[in-house]
Amino acid sequence: MAAPNPTACLLVIGNEVLSGRTRDANIQFLATGLGNLGIPLREVRVIPDVHQTIIDTVNEVRKKFDYVFTTGGIGPTHDDITSECVAAAFGVPWEPHPVAWPRMEASYKPGDFNAARQRMATMPRGAALIENSISVAPGFQMENVYVMAGVPRVMQSMFEWLAPRLQGGTKIEMRVVHAIGLPEGVIADGLAAIQARYPDLDIGSYPFYRATGNGVALVAKGPDVAAAERAVAEITQLIVSLGRTPIQGEPPDV
Amino acid sequence: MAAPNPTACLLVIGNEVLSGRTRDANIQFLATGLGNLGIPLREVRVIPDVHQTIIDTVNEVRKKFDYVFTTGGIGPTHDDITSECVAAAFGVPWEPHPVAWPRMEASYKPGDFNAARQRMATMPRGAALIENSISVAPGFQMENVYVMAGVPRVMQSMFEWLAPRLQGGTKIEMRVVHAIGLPEGVIADGLAAIQARYPDLDIGSYPFYRATGNGVALVAKGPDVAAAERAVAEITQLIVSLGRTPIQGEPPDV
Repeated sequence: MAAPNPTACLLVIGNEVLSGRTRDANIQFLATGLGNLGIPLREVRVIPDVHQTIIDTVNEVRKKFDYVFTTGGIGPTHDDITSECVAAAFGVPWEPHPVAWPRMEASYKPGDFNAARQRMATMPRGAALIENSISVAPGFQMENVYVMAGVPRVMQSMFEWLAPRLQGGTKIEMRVVHAIGLPEGVIADGLAAIQARYPDLDIGSYPFYRATGNGVALVAKGPDVAAAERAVAEITQLIVSLGRTPIQGEPPDV
Repeated sequence: MAAPNPTACLLVIGNEVLSGRTRDANIQFLATGLGNLGIPLREVRVIPDVHQTIIDTVNEVRKKFDYVFTTGGIGPTHDDITSECVAAAFGVPWEPHPVAWPRMEASYKPGDFNAARQRMATMPRGAALIENSISVAPGFQMENVYVMAGVPRVMQSMFEWLAPRLQGGTKIEMRVVHAIGLPEGVIADGLAAIQARYPDLDIGSYPFYRATGNGVALVAKGPDVAAAERAVAEITQLIVSLGRTPIQGEPPDV
């Protein structure tokens, strides 16, 4: 039996998602990227830029999950408080980072490395940098907590740098078959029987509504790709037995 | 002084968001809709289809927030377990609903109201229905917990039905001004001073990167619209004093 996969939690920090001003663009990217590393994302929390909320949430989830990733709140403005809150969560000083500070100072014209920008070079004592190719301001790691930018392309660059440095597990494989015009209520009983035969897989059913026809996506997911393929083969036969035509992979209009 | 606004938490229940298969489409809709009702969304959690996780999370957040909304997990398949978990969270039986059951039974052809579909008419004892115009299966309310579908157009229909029935507060108003080519690090100090003069507003700074030019969106948010407008006027003057051209409202390429 293989070792269980490590688990991850994502904290999306920022009022802009909670107010509806911004549609989150980071959850799906990280969910997919972490799944590919065999580090399934088990929870996401979107929380506001409030000191005690950030501190308490970081301390709660870093004990519950193997990895914690945060996005947002590490810029130069007054509402960027993630970094000082992570220092408080770990009970360490928030101070100039010995590598980030001189590097950022050198990257600005004399006088332009102002108090606001100095905040981006101020980190919890002991932080290890997370590099990126977009911005001069790095993210950082404290134990199992990885603090990244909220701007999607900066976050994505940080995650690309980080990915080969994370200790993953067996990749979570996913196989899918679609059926147009098949109500979930018709396939549910047969699907539950297949799930019962594959307890190590997650078998999911996701209805969709499209101009070209309503239907359902049936997904088998788990670290054992052969089992996922066998389960999808059984689901495919089930669809045929119910008088519908299965569509392997993504349907053409996804 | 007006009464404080009631608070809301959203639970997005479902493996498909955590695996990256689906990009969530409900957070922004509900964040905006609740903000318009003066019920600011204070936290979102995305959690998997796991019994104990759902039960524990529902019980934690229904004590912390005035309103809890859930999306997902009320369909007919084996992975739709939200309804029975909410019953367990409230410590009440999960049983045929006296209104939903006969209504759904009547809507199917004889024999088609099978065990899977009966699950959608089975609810915590005492549940009040949440109606919608898309699907015959309703959502339901237990005290301050509102259980809705995960399929966006069904959820939206349920929320439209629900909105006039919720006890809201003063609408949260938002005003925004943009500045192209203005780094956050340059405006941060002046912005912090404006935030200090408007402690009842949330003033936020959100950088954007677009083909037509990078810049920053500066947002003032709160129940006092006159204060939000004064703050944005001050931010506008700050932008001008820094040698940039402010753009009121959304810039043309949003």
